[in-house]
Amino acid sequence: MKVFKYPTKAHWSALLTRPVMSEKDLENVVSPILDAVKRDGDAALKQFTSQFDKVTISAFAVSEKEIQEAESTLDERLKAAIRQAAENIRKFHQAQRENPIKVETMKGVECWRKSVPIDKVGIYIPGGTAPLFSTVLMLAIPAVEAGCKEIVLCSPPSGNGKLHPAIIYAATFSGVSKLFKVGGAQAIAAMAYGTPSIPRVFKIFGPGNQYVTAAKQLVTRDGTAIDMPAGPSEVAVLADETANPHFIAADLLSQAEHGADSQVILVTTSSSVIERVVTTIDEQLVKLPRKEIAIKALENSRVFLLSDEEACIELLNEYAPEHLILSISNADEVAEKITNAGSVFLGHFTPESVGDYASGTNHTLPTNGWARSFSGVSLDSFFKKITFQKLSREGLQNIGETVEVMAEAEGLEAHKQAVSIRLKWIKAEEQ
Amino acid sequence: MKVFKYPTKAHWSALLTRPVMSEKDLENVVSPILDAVKRDGDAALKQFTSQFDKVTISAFAVSEKEIQEAESTLDERLKAAIRQAAENIRKFHQAQRENPIKVETMKGVECWRKSVPIDKVGIYIPGGTAPLFSTVLMLAIPAVEAGCKEIVLCSPPSGNGKLHPAIIYAATFSGVSKLFKVGGAQAIAAMAYGTPSIPRVFKIFGPGNQYVTAAKQLVTRDGTAIDMPAGPSEVAVLADETANPHFIAADLLSQAEHGADSQVILVTTSSSVIERVVTTIDEQLVKLPRKEIAIKALENSRVFLLSDEEACIELLNEYAPEHLILSISNADEVAEKITNAGSVFLGHFTPESVGDYASGTNHTLPTNGWARSFSGVSLDSFFKKITFQKLSREGLQNIGETVEVMAEAEGLEAHKQAVSIRLKWIKAEEQ
Repeated sequence: MKVFKYPTKAHWSALLTRPVMSEKDLENVVSPILDAVKRDGDAALKQFTSQFDKVTISAFAVSEKEIQEAESTLDERLKAAIRQAAENIRKFHQAQRENPIKVETMKGVECWRKSVPIDKVGIYIPGGTAPLFSTVLMLAIPAVEAGCKEIVLCSPPSGNGKLHPAIIYAATFSGVSKLFKVGGAQAIAAMAYGTPSIPRVFKIFGPGNQYVTAAKQLVTRDGTAIDMPAGPSEVAVLADETANPHFIAADLLSQAEHGADSQVILVTTSSSVIERVVTTIDEQLVKLPRKEIAIKALENSRVFLLSDEEACIELLNEYAPEHLILSISNADEVAEKITNAGSVFLGHFTPESVGDYASGTNHTLPTNGWARSFSGVSLDSFFKKITFQKLSREGLQNIGETVEVMAEAEGLEAHKQAVSIRLKWIKAEEQ
Repeated sequence: MKVFKYPTKAHWSALLTRPVMSEKDLENVVSPILDAVKRDGDAALKQFTSQFDKVTISAFAVSEKEIQEAESTLDERLKAAIRQAAENIRKFHQAQRENPIKVETMKGVECWRKSVPIDKVGIYIPGGTAPLFSTVLMLAIPAVEAGCKEIVLCSPPSGNGKLHPAIIYAATFSGVSKLFKVGGAQAIAAMAYGTPSIPRVFKIFGPGNQYVTAAKQLVTRDGTAIDMPAGPSEVAVLADETANPHFIAADLLSQAEHGADSQVILVTTSSSVIERVVTTIDEQLVKLPRKEIAIKALENSRVFLLSDEEACIELLNEYAPEHLILSISNADEVAEKITNAGSVFLGHFTPESVGDYASGTNHTLPTNGWARSFSGVSLDSFFKKITFQKLSREGLQNIGETVEVMAEAEGLEAHKQAVSIRLKWIKAEEQ
């Protein structure tokens, strides 16, 4: 970790740059996969699955038998943990439900807005070294709570041609009914365009490797929405003298072990905190199974020693971290001043990992500075909000002239006439 | 308008296709403009303004003098109309304010979510034939209500080197303080990257021609968010025997006059409604100043005669119109069944134009089928929602094992340790 002592504000921006993502050539690799799935449907899925996942799949849908197997083979402690996390996530997302808003803006002019679930949504869960069943919960639970009619989950099959039982269990326990054993860009294509096996959806959620990410970006051109732009995961920790260096070191490492491109930032006004944390990181690092990954991530990572708390807050808001841990005695007060972050963890007993798994907040969060303008996934992400208006005759008479004058000034005569014709008709009726 | 009588469901999808947008080569035209602005700042803006807008601008900021001129020259009736519309828009958007949500998901595990305004937002208002001051209201008012600190508005200068007084008046009345005379892709670049004159923003809103639209898409790659994907405007009207054909014809034409690529759809179970509307359109059309545009739009437009109301609703939900007018006697009942639309207009006295200007709902709405997954602009669009969590020692003890078990099962040892180290410390403290 590079330490920067009292950098001037003019240098912050350069010191806060993220690891660059290489987008080049990905489109050339991914586009033909999307085209093939659009053209050949399931046959293309089978071919890509055997090519990339090295396994032959005859039916993509996870069978009832596989679901029962997953339930019976999965460790009871893990099932209980999944159920507890699901309960917390459900509680927090249920509380986000909004009532319709209704306003009479003028007499006889009623306007309202209603949240309506997106009919069909897709969830992508990557395969690879770790089965991300926690992400299943984070995406499936709000989708079910929002009332999406069709929730499709795709995840690449392992070498045995199956999904990891924890993924199957988390999905079925959350209420997902359509699980498919297909991954990569071809899974994104299947959900965006539909195939005989896999239904088309209107919005796709979930993380993935660079091909999956590129595929998600590309299908937006054809009318499928996505959760948010992707980027490597990151955490910033603000620490004061009350912080325990062992806790902070563990928090920084838990982000660093995510991936070699993860970014970890420590901000403090105390040089002794820095010394103690750096030493402790080295001690903890050697014990980690994913230490090679963490070491690479730490190379991208930075420590900032700043003169006062205000400067720390300003720098953090400029960075706009995905996760922000406030390991300080006055966390409540500082949290009020945070304007750019995905999710904030207050105090010494709130490690990021509680939010990653089980506190109830969503772990699908804006990375790469997108916290300046994007929210994390929430119940909202599975709704669209439709506005409505209804005018009575009196309402139209009250608002009519305003509309006529504005339409005329914008040079849109037919817009004006849509009002004028009605007003004349009302007048004639009343006589 | 082409009439389709009782088409089978299998054909709906093909009959409901939108006019195709040609994206090709736009990137090659727009990318060099973005690069030039990024590199040369204001000098590039000056050069493109003189090249595309045929006017030399020495200072881009609209001056206090120009603001006063706009206020004093603008017609009083128009000012009154703008103020009335602004009041309605403000009322409806104010009602969308959300209180923070706080939930204790387990004892000692507090989670909450807060809406925080996006610090800096940009509004683009096109020039051209009509000064779209109504769009200024629709974007500036919620931005001000949300509490965005910096609201930047860019619009291309007319031949006299100024903005239309109605645009200046609507902006300053709404509370926008930074107005700039610059348009096109170069204005989008200025707001995305910043120049010495024009501040960088984090999210850009507003309509524009194909170059502006392409520029908005491109700057998202560099970290600037945009309101929504762009597409031609469209309306669908559902009419029954109680509908007045003069009203419907006027509504269809008010959409058709927007642009040659606008799309207009009429759905009904009554063949006599179709006959009467088609005749009336021809009568009204000849009187319109923008009839050439409307005629072209009507060529893209379709009439569907269907067997029953359920089929009409199903077809409309499949189409997912930006605007939907329910010119029917049971509009309230049918509105409840609408699942895909941007904004819905109920009954015979609610033309689309009231929503375009003044009812209070927002007129920046999802087009091109995006209503399946996107909401129109609202107060939400100017906020991001940050989640927070705070655990007490007891909270961490309650949730700890759940996190440890899940982290271990996902193979993320450091995630587990961030909890375990704290739990051990608490235990040691308690002894």
